[in-house]
Amino acid sequence: MKVGIVGLGLIGGSMAIDIKRRGFADEIIGVESDPVNAAAAVKIGLADRVTGLQECLEQSDIVVLSVPVGAALKMLPEVLDAFSRMKAEDKVVIDVCSTKEHLTRAVKYHPCRSQYVATHPMAGTEYSGPWAAMSGLFDGNVCILCDSEESSPKAVRKVEQLYDVLNMRAIYMNSSNHDVHTAYVSHISHITSFALAQTVLDKEKDEKHIFDLASGGFSSTVRLAKSSPDMWTPILVQNRDNVLRVMDTYIEKMQSFRKAIEESDEDAIRELIEDANRIRRIIR
Amino acid sequence: MKVGIVGLGLIGGSMAIDIKRRGFADEIIGVESDPVNAAAAVKIGLADRVTGLQECLEQSDIVVLSVPVGAALKMLPEVLDAFSRMKAEDKVVIDVCSTKEHLTRAVKYHPCRSQYVATHPMAGTEYSGPWAAMSGLFDGNVCILCDSEESSPKAVRKVEQLYDVLNMRAIYMNSSNHDVHTAYVSHISHITSFALAQTVLDKEKDEKHIFDLASGGFSSTVRLAKSSPDMWTPILVQNRDNVLRVMDTYIEKMQSFRKAIEESDEDAIRELIEDANRIRRIIR
Repeated sequence: MKVGIVGLGLIGGSMAIDIKRRGFADEIIGVESDPVNAAAAVKIGLADRVTGLQECLEQSDIVVLSVPVGAALKMLPEVLDAFSRMKAEDKVVIDVCSTKEHLTRAVKYHPCRSQYVATHPMAGTEYSGPWAAMSGLFDGNVCILCDSEESSPKAVRKVEQLYDVLNMRAIYMNSSNHDVHTAYVSHISHITSFALAQTVLDKEKDEKHIFDLASGGFSSTVRLAKSSPDMWTPILVQNRDNVLRVMDTYIEKMQSFRKAIEESDEDAIRELIEDANRIRRIIR
Repeated sequence: MKVGIVGLGLIGGSMAIDIKRRGFADEIIGVESDPVNAAAAVKIGLADRVTGLQECLEQSDIVVLSVPVGAALKMLPEVLDAFSRMKAEDKVVIDVCSTKEHLTRAVKYHPCRSQYVATHPMAGTEYSGPWAAMSGLFDGNVCILCDSEESSPKAVRKVEQLYDVLNMRAIYMNSSNHDVHTAYVSHISHITSFALAQTVLDKEKDEKHIFDLASGGFSSTVRLAKSSPDMWTPILVQNRDNVLRVMDTYIEKMQSFRKAIEESDEDAIRELIEDANRIRRIIR
């Protein structure tokens, strides 16, 4: 199997490593618009070769769009157009983006829609670029397949095999629910981390203090604030309405804490913390 | 050296393990008001024996108050009173609490003030109780010594040796600065985590979804939300003014994000994320 990977960053690169190493792909054909990243990806060995998009589409059995969601939105119809022109009915394209409604809507009536499988492997680190790629990134995590009834069963099966090789557990959801749930569980955590980093950098003028005191839990809470603006700007715009709703609830919770602390109301503070502690049941 | 540890939870218990194992203490004399925790601490081997407070004070060379800061505020003057009654000029007491101004103010004019060293080892996990104690908890982290000029040089030296055995790097600060900096870097991260947990639990009614999607960065951001209300309620009350100031800045940052997202203003979102990304310079 030849797998084309468009975007050899953290996600695309990590996928390339493990599907090649574990025998799912015989050859990885990379596409990478940034020349430095392209050279690095070849040097590191993420791709067997780097080509233009057209050549990659012609030669790959599966194409993985692992680019920020704004770019994916532009490329996905072009890829399906190319499949149509090539009469390549067995080729499959997947995306790995964090928002799904805009993407699936953009190709809903495309004659080759059934060759597209919308996927979201829930894995990552706060780093990006080919240097950040690593083996095992996906192992043990969940991959969401969206609107899979709109893809051909054959395409879905192929993609399930790919994620099985990555040791991911597939779950199924429609795009609209996907975007709601990722706003609740993933997107909001990034925003709270960004705001936390900004706050601490603003208030604490002495970087040495931040470094010294970071072991008090700060570094894990702020980890996501290192995430890439290229990736996160389009996610937050595309998932705007869901994200705003969860932000409003979050700001209300902060205000309740603020009020309880301002009033030195120990009972109220304790109740709020105990309410938050319910998360222990779910996250080990 | 006999070390008395009052409160055999995460911090006291972890300290007990390593100062005994590494030869700083010949004997650990524990005090633990909760009978279940006391029995567990002996069974796990955190303390050689568990006694009443009075017996512990009589027999220990150094006494560690590792109880929540509300309890420490009550006990610290009692310990110094006991030292005074015993004419035990060589005994030393330390606390390990996360706020310092109230504590140091409470004993500022105590005749035995110089036998007290205010310390804050910046280490911990989100778990609590004797079961959470572990070897190596403090290794490589910072310990803040507050107002050390008000302690006798001999007492300070003894305490520096203790933290050196725990592989901690000592830094020195006055109590008031300590409380400002910990509000900025540590206390705010706990509040943002508590509010995040509450938000996700409120919005996401299906716990299975939280579990499945948590690998998207949520679990590290929400980790601190498992922290104990017994420990955190008094910290937030005692450090109220500093905490409120940093919360206000934080809520402003969240509002800026909210506005940029509401307006789908990609440039503004990108700028906010890039501003947050400055944290990369400081936290690896």
